[in-house]
Amino acid sequence: MEQDVLLKNNLLAERNRGYFEARKIMALNFLSSPGSGKTSLLEKTIPMLLAHVPVAVIEGDQQTTNDAERIHALGVPVIQINTGSGCHLDALMVNRAVKEMELKDNSLLCIENVGNLVCPAMFDLGEAKKIVIISTTEGDDKPLKYPAMFHEADICVLNKTDLLPYVDFSVPRCRENAMRVNHHLEWFEVSVKTGEGLDSLAARIKNLAEHR
Amino acid sequence: MEQDVLLKNNLLAERNRGYFEARKIMALNFLSSPGSGKTSLLEKTIPMLLAHVPVAVIEGDQQTTNDAERIHALGVPVIQINTGSGCHLDALMVNRAVKEMELKDNSLLCIENVGNLVCPAMFDLGEAKKIVIISTTEGDDKPLKYPAMFHEADICVLNKTDLLPYVDFSVPRCRENAMRVNHHLEWFEVSVKTGEGLDSLAARIKNLAEHR
Repeated sequence: MEQDVLLKNNLLAERNRGYFEARKIMALNFLSSPGSGKTSLLEKTIPMLLAHVPVAVIEGDQQTTNDAERIHALGVPVIQINTGSGCHLDALMVNRAVKEMELKDNSLLCIENVGNLVCPAMFDLGEAKKIVIISTTEGDDKPLKYPAMFHEADICVLNKTDLLPYVDFSVPRCRENAMRVNHHLEWFEVSVKTGEGLDSLAARIKNLAEHR
Repeated sequence: MEQDVLLKNNLLAERNRGYFEARKIMALNFLSSPGSGKTSLLEKTIPMLLAHVPVAVIEGDQQTTNDAERIHALGVPVIQINTGSGCHLDALMVNRAVKEMELKDNSLLCIENVGNLVCPAMFDLGEAKKIVIISTTEGDDKPLKYPAMFHEADICVLNKTDLLPYVDFSVPRCRENAMRVNHHLEWFEVSVKTGEGLDSLAARIKNLAEHR
């Protein structure tokens, strides 16, 4: 039964993937626990990208339009999906949102998933890459305790490096744990607050968008 | 179908509740995002309680026995449940664990759920109280964005108050947001790291355990 749900989702995700390919849209799925800084990361990174590529955003949350309002303030097309009791975005939600948004050809679509380090890992949305964000306040053992997400991800962003002096967190140990789960992971370290490391991440996203 | 799963779970949760009532066991369900500090909170609080009440712990995680090992070091009975791809503990897992553990009459059972601010809210385990933990690094809008969990909880613990000088987080706004979702919430502010506020929380748990 759970398999039925996942199978249906996988089919629709492939339809989305075809849609994105046809329009040369680079779709990225941003995933993390609540409060790791997904929205802040988009707020800081999108302005660095807009000179190179048109950007649109889909925001997922159980409730509120807080995040969409923050993205809207950047002057970027954004749609908020509220999942209610639901714990993840699914391919159908994205399919509907995409059609409502009139995305530009050759653009970048950032999908910010519901804050949840567990369930969204299982739901393909048709994205080209999954980007998992963790923060230095969450403990360096998280990749081992929640391996599904790190196994599925293509890129891992460690956020809140500005807080390293105040927390018990070993960056090398966290990275090692993440690589044990998935040695293909690309690894970035950033502080959205200070801006440290965002240049490299934005360059990588720009590069992805240019090779869609 | 989802309703079937929840109904079955609710029935078994009531069976657990009867079991706990018969043995005068106070069962508490600790819930939060990954990395909010559930295990550290238990590590610091349980020693403050052991003079008053026997304590046992059930640990939930997708993988690893890290948390159980940390609790075991306190000399307290503990069982680790690994949910694999599962995103929450359910009543059946707790029922089986409880029977394996030989809990003492008149004891306190702390159940640390899988780190997930979404799904575990829907699964009654038969506990007397749900305790949700959030941390000052997660953003003060989390109760509004993930209201189901705050609606179901009885007690809210704000952890990592030691990091307040370094993060953009308003304690009054967070509390107000939590109370908007559930005005019955009991509210505690703690720093597991410095120990600040743990006395009051431990006193409240002791009080709960004495009135089971």
